[in-house]
Amino acid sequence: MTYQLKYLSLRARGEAVRWVLKVAGVTYTEETIDIFREWPGRKHEFKFRKVPELVVDGKPLHQTTVICRFLGERHDLASGDLWTTTRQMEVVEALHDLANSMASALMARVQGDEERQKVMVGLAEAQFPVVLSNIEERITNKGWILSQQMTWVDVFIAAYLDVYENYFPGEVAKFPLCEALRRRVQDMPVIKAWREERPPWHPFEDPQGLVAPSGGPP
Amino acid sequence: MTYQLKYLSLRARGEAVRWVLKVAGVTYTEETIDIFREWPGRKHEFKFRKVPELVVDGKPLHQTTVICRFLGERHDLASGDLWTTTRQMEVVEALHDLANSMASALMARVQGDEERQKVMVGLAEAQFPVVLSNIEERITNKGWILSQQMTWVDVFIAAYLDVYENYFPGEVAKFPLCEALRRRVQDMPVIKAWREERPPWHPFEDPQGLVAPSGGPP
Repeated sequence: MTYQLKYLSLRARGEAVRWVLKVAGVTYTEETIDIFREWPGRKHEFKFRKVPELVVDGKPLHQTTVICRFLGERHDLASGDLWTTTRQMEVVEALHDLANSMASALMARVQGDEERQKVMVGLAEAQFPVVLSNIEERITNKGWILSQQMTWVDVFIAAYLDVYENYFPGEVAKFPLCEALRRRVQDMPVIKAWREERPPWHPFEDPQGLVAPSGGPP
Repeated sequence: MTYQLKYLSLRARGEAVRWVLKVAGVTYTEETIDIFREWPGRKHEFKFRKVPELVVDGKPLHQTTVICRFLGERHDLASGDLWTTTRQMEVVEALHDLANSMASALMARVQGDEERQKVMVGLAEAQFPVVLSNIEERITNKGWILSQQMTWVDVFIAAYLDVYENYFPGEVAKFPLCEALRRRVQDMPVIKAWREERPPWHPFEDPQGLVAPSGGPP
């Protein structure tokens, strides 16, 4: 089986797919599309006009949570119990929801729309600790989300926390089990290596001035 | 097993859950919360500060797509094949994404923010036909999405199309297989009965003036 990831020159939604691919231990190639220079002209190549897209044995697959769950189930990184999976998916979808708000905020900044930027950051800012507290209470004594061993859900959540820490520094640390989960996944050799070699943040993702765009001294 | 749905006095995201519950043939009760009078004061009762919430045998479950998939799998309305389910979930998540844009647009209208309303409606308006075309190409000769028999995915999609037809009238009909799917689910006795007895649209959901808020004659 072959995998090719197509995503923007960002961490954002793509980072979760990359981490799950790496932890699943499969080889994949990645095609990176610069969000400013290339994306507007290439958008129409994609069936949903969106990325990430994972090409699985030549067939395109979309939607971040769908891609990650597929990889987890295909590569034995998933729970087989319906209720467990369902309650894991609750936090997966809830955390992923923030990606919509943050993407809108980042786009609004590029467009110079401070008002929309502020509203969208506000939505994410209010919801992030709510989601974290729900993740916290699902972490078992083994340190994984509703499981005695690691599943793709832990990897997905850790990757998103790694991204959100960029925007809300120190927030994850308020939830000690979440923080420990993030560290445990980050310390896996394959993720540790990726975190050292991956490209720096794209300027589009710069948190500077994003959270409080117009208020007070820096 | 017992089910209680808690949702706002809207169709919106709740309608998909209602339709899946009805087609699954289970009994449930619903607690309706008025979005204007009650929601702001009651939001903090909910673990994710969001609805719909489905209380399953006393345990709260959140996220529309997660709730519907759980019901489908628990009540034998799902495909058992990983790749089929995955490709069904692609369109489920993609169509559901529009709910975020429309919710923001409707909220912006209430707040009198015409600019944000316009941006958000624009996002949904551009994406809706893209998603419809992807659903269209997944409909089999039996008329169901990637399946020879009806699954919860068909019911979910039909319920969303029923809601989006409110905002973009005539759009679904441009995709004949989607239109036929919607009709087929609507004509099931249990859905037909619900469509006749359900409350009228809440004023919050009124499409009047939403799509082109500030332009031209009515």
